[in-house]
Amino acid sequence: MVNDKQIYDIANIVRRDSLKMTHAAGSGHPTSSMSAAELGAVLFFDEMRYDPKNPNNPDNDEFVISKGHATPLLYPLLFRAGCIKDDLMKLRTFKSPLEGHPIPASLSWVKVATGSLGQGLSVGVGMALAARMSGRKYRTYVMLGDSETAEGSVWEAVELASYYKINNLVAMVDVNRLGQRGETMLGHDMQAHKRRFEGFGWQAIIIDGHNVVQIKAAFAKARKSKKPVVILTKTLKGKGVSFLENKDGWHGKAVEDKEQLDKALKELPDPKMPAFSISKPQKTRAKKLRKEKPRFVPYKEGDKTATRAGYGVALAELASRDQRIIAVDGEVSNSTYSEYVKKKTPKQFIEAFIAEQNMVGMALGLSKKGFNVFASSFACFLSRAHDQIRMAALSSADINFCGSHIGVSIGEDGPSQMGLEDVAIFRALPRSFVFDPSDWVSAQKITYLAAGLKGLTYIRTTRPNTPILYKPSEKFTVGDFKVLKQSKKDRVVLVGAGITLHEALKAAEALKNAAVADLYCIQPFKGKKFVDFVKKHGGRLVVVEDHYKAGGIGEMLAEVVVGSGIKFKSLYVHKQPHSGKAEELMRDQGIDAAGIVKAAKEL
Amino acid sequence: MVNDKQIYDIANIVRRDSLKMTHAAGSGHPTSSMSAAELGAVLFFDEMRYDPKNPNNPDNDEFVISKGHATPLLYPLLFRAGCIKDDLMKLRTFKSPLEGHPIPASLSWVKVATGSLGQGLSVGVGMALAARMSGRKYRTYVMLGDSETAEGSVWEAVELASYYKINNLVAMVDVNRLGQRGETMLGHDMQAHKRRFEGFGWQAIIIDGHNVVQIKAAFAKARKSKKPVVILTKTLKGKGVSFLENKDGWHGKAVEDKEQLDKALKELPDPKMPAFSISKPQKTRAKKLRKEKPRFVPYKEGDKTATRAGYGVALAELASRDQRIIAVDGEVSNSTYSEYVKKKTPKQFIEAFIAEQNMVGMALGLSKKGFNVFASSFACFLSRAHDQIRMAALSSADINFCGSHIGVSIGEDGPSQMGLEDVAIFRALPRSFVFDPSDWVSAQKITYLAAGLKGLTYIRTTRPNTPILYKPSEKFTVGDFKVLKQSKKDRVVLVGAGITLHEALKAAEALKNAAVADLYCIQPFKGKKFVDFVKKHGGRLVVVEDHYKAGGIGEMLAEVVVGSGIKFKSLYVHKQPHSGKAEELMRDQGIDAAGIVKAAKEL
Repeated sequence: MVNDKQIYDIANIVRRDSLKMTHAAGSGHPTSSMSAAELGAVLFFDEMRYDPKNPNNPDNDEFVISKGHATPLLYPLLFRAGCIKDDLMKLRTFKSPLEGHPIPASLSWVKVATGSLGQGLSVGVGMALAARMSGRKYRTYVMLGDSETAEGSVWEAVELASYYKINNLVAMVDVNRLGQRGETMLGHDMQAHKRRFEGFGWQAIIIDGHNVVQIKAAFAKARKSKKPVVILTKTLKGKGVSFLENKDGWHGKAVEDKEQLDKALKELPDPKMPAFSISKPQKTRAKKLRKEKPRFVPYKEGDKTATRAGYGVALAELASRDQRIIAVDGEVSNSTYSEYVKKKTPKQFIEAFIAEQNMVGMALGLSKKGFNVFASSFACFLSRAHDQIRMAALSSADINFCGSHIGVSIGEDGPSQMGLEDVAIFRALPRSFVFDPSDWVSAQKITYLAAGLKGLTYIRTTRPNTPILYKPSEKFTVGDFKVLKQSKKDRVVLVGAGITLHEALKAAEALKNAAVADLYCIQPFKGKKFVDFVKKHGGRLVVVEDHYKAGGIGEMLAEVVVGSGIKFKSLYVHKQPHSGKAEELMRDQGIDAAGIVKAAKEL
Repeated sequence: MVNDKQIYDIANIVRRDSLKMTHAAGSGHPTSSMSAAELGAVLFFDEMRYDPKNPNNPDNDEFVISKGHATPLLYPLLFRAGCIKDDLMKLRTFKSPLEGHPIPASLSWVKVATGSLGQGLSVGVGMALAARMSGRKYRTYVMLGDSETAEGSVWEAVELASYYKINNLVAMVDVNRLGQRGETMLGHDMQAHKRRFEGFGWQAIIIDGHNVVQIKAAFAKARKSKKPVVILTKTLKGKGVSFLENKDGWHGKAVEDKEQLDKALKELPDPKMPAFSISKPQKTRAKKLRKEKPRFVPYKEGDKTATRAGYGVALAELASRDQRIIAVDGEVSNSTYSEYVKKKTPKQFIEAFIAEQNMVGMALGLSKKGFNVFASSFACFLSRAHDQIRMAALSSADINFCGSHIGVSIGEDGPSQMGLEDVAIFRALPRSFVFDPSDWVSAQKITYLAAGLKGLTYIRTTRPNTPILYKPSEKFTVGDFKVLKQSKKDRVVLVGAGITLHEALKAAEALKNAAVADLYCIQPFKGKKFVDFVKKHGGRLVVVEDHYKAGGIGEMLAEVVVGSGIKFKSLYVHKQPHSGKAEELMRDQGIDAAGIVKAAKEL
């Protein structure tokens, strides 16, 4: 513990650090860091309990810096607390772990990547729920900027924290009035900020963010609250330096030169770093979570055979064997069939309501605290959380996603409900796996496979029931494809995945001389084996997908076979779809058996 | 005008319609329509002023059905009001304009596609602002479901309406308590809904949504308000039929069979359709908006030469000549350079703050009321609005997007700020154009080009300054590419776009025998001309992009050249990037001149 005077000293040391390191880097966000220096100093040296030697101590209090640009606040705090030893003056350089915005792959004290604003509170909600579910006593602290409260995702997190009565979470908003290009929507109207949070059922505490006594008192109050708490700190951007303080035009800028740096430093106290001891985390005897291997669930007469049902069955089986498995869903669990988890092991199901951005952020928080999360919605609505998924990838997270209702094969609901860009979204991400099961068995097997992988996995599932193609003994591995039909006389290879595999099989019946391959694993993909296979079977390739062209399996395979001499034709959703019967829509887009036969004959 | 009794009659006629048409379709959302039958009837037959013969009368009041699944409410209202003559019993069939969710391409009375929830209010904000800016007196009405108020995007629209004091907009929330798979977060807690809206500075009016007198009174009150108004209607899902009313398990379901339909209809009154006259729209003498052609702005010593600056210069020029041009920006106008518009013609600039989803929805609303909108943010943050962009495409909208700070070339800020999936996002959309200018001149010319196109246009721009390549007289057309270097001795063609074009040019200097092509127009693209060009220049192709592989120009061109015999190699961002200098990062990803030279030599 340190006394108030020492906290002020640390705040000024951090301010000096932020000015110096951004000057050395030639860029960065010193002023957004200086406004929260006292808040950060109280948090790291008085309020939070953690082991500075071990970022992965499961009892550590967690800190998420949602205003990710404030790395010149975060890194000095970590450095001064003894968590990291890296040279602050190497900020933003290629070899340094101190990246411009926080990145877990570079720094173990950073659990999630931030810098796309408005995402941290959802992560905090996930971490706070994880504490509750694992029986740990750590608390979660999320620091937001005032500008970012304009992001709707913040209010998704706020409403869910309220709904689940999460009181081991503290949000802090650094209300420094200024955004990137001028004043925020609410400026320094602290009461307006308060009304918003209170309207959503939170306890809101307004304080002077440069007053250490008030900050400490607010944290003490927060510990006693039965509701989620937000501390609204009124602060000044660039606090402490006359020509920066509360001045517009200084967002995301280092001081101009050495002379200006010296001028700024001269205005700030230059104290010695006080001796301190950080409060140890409270050791808990956490719940022991059971973990067994899932078993294949045999098909029973009357089961729905859509791949989404296979996914649901598998997920429920997984969850019943492994308590680390958590299903989260965006209010469509009776469509994605994640409701099977809710029915079997309700404690392992979290309803995220229609708020996909928070669903993904929350999944990230849960996953970072040791849970194996499966997040599901309609594939098209995962695009709502594209930015959160992108940031989860940059967070080196291990999360599983399932997007149901892919493509025009959903039929009557029409294009607004069709997932037609999901493969492109998930293929692009670093460390991602993309699966497209085609029957009830493969959906089940692939769900088990995904559960064991590190990285982001994505499983796309279909609405209509489809015939069962595989035996329960069939094995599915990462990076491979299946051959469902082949002969020595083959003139062409037809490739489908999911719903289109069934069309490819019908087309092969009609064609007689066609092999059929199932691209159940879209990413990663072994190109060489595939090229050899196609060459052996006629050197002609027809790829068909219920997805737009850009970033789909057609383009992917074009890039695999280009230059090999293989003749190529891809079929995909090439125009805005309509409502109608699945068969009509697939025919209309030319991705049904007839379209495949025609393409194969013309090749 | 019709009297209260007649409104009740219309409500019941609509209820009957909704049951019958979804029974005929075998699917759909009757219960979500029945809850809002009185509200819809008052709105269409008493409150709104419009010309049932002309959906495009610019003085018509506007109605946006944000709960897009309630088409069995919308279509009967339109039908009974005499707006449409289509057979309601053909709902959701392939040849009918009455799609499962509303689609403008199918029905002229539908201005925007809805069905991905939480997006309608942003459109309403755009339409309401458009009325103000064009001097029209129409009012905008948005009907939301209670479930969808969980979407953060709703609160982005709410906060902005509050900020801009929009009082020609009325939101109505049909609080029927039940979502798709059970109760909503707030159930029938009307006060909790009220507190949220009031916390954001709105006037909230709670009424019984089945009481016509209360509905009329609420609308009258709304007309007098200086604030944006929400009418919170307490209703029952499936109202009027005992076995549907307020019952779980009836979302998105038609009655099971003819027998059940008859049973339901028997419980509902069966009135005759009353005679009515709908209030005419109030004719306004709208502002005449000046429109002239933009002129090329010559380069002046000291101008920033980044493509984002070229974009900003062009947009400001456009706006100063054409009052229909509106720039909206997500609080980064000093980075995207849309601030040039704000400086020159401030009335044509709308600050959207850090709320990209609402920015796009608002742009959609503005565009549907005749404005030519340019919406900008960092390219990576447009992914935040991916779902809104998707729905704008399904709305047949004409909107221009600009994503700045693309790729690893942004440097020190690190991967959270890098646009690496934007090309894939925008290529996938139906009716989209994708541009990637490489210098200040082409950025300017392409901005003018985009302004004249129908559809969604996307321009990606770079952070760093780049040399000027083109003369002011250069012409850029849709669907073409430029050849910057070629000779008869060429062994290979190097293709770049934007920042990578400059690397390709450097590589060509080193290689001597390489042609260089500028893919300034990524979509649409003339494949044949390109294949011929590559074949003529060595039959080898190296494509380089500052973008992930999936859906980028590498895969796109692979699909163009596959089977042609052209040898192919693509270079792209293949691993998670780091902070650092632009040159270091491009080298690290192998997309700099050295990487191109190496690839070309190995081909």
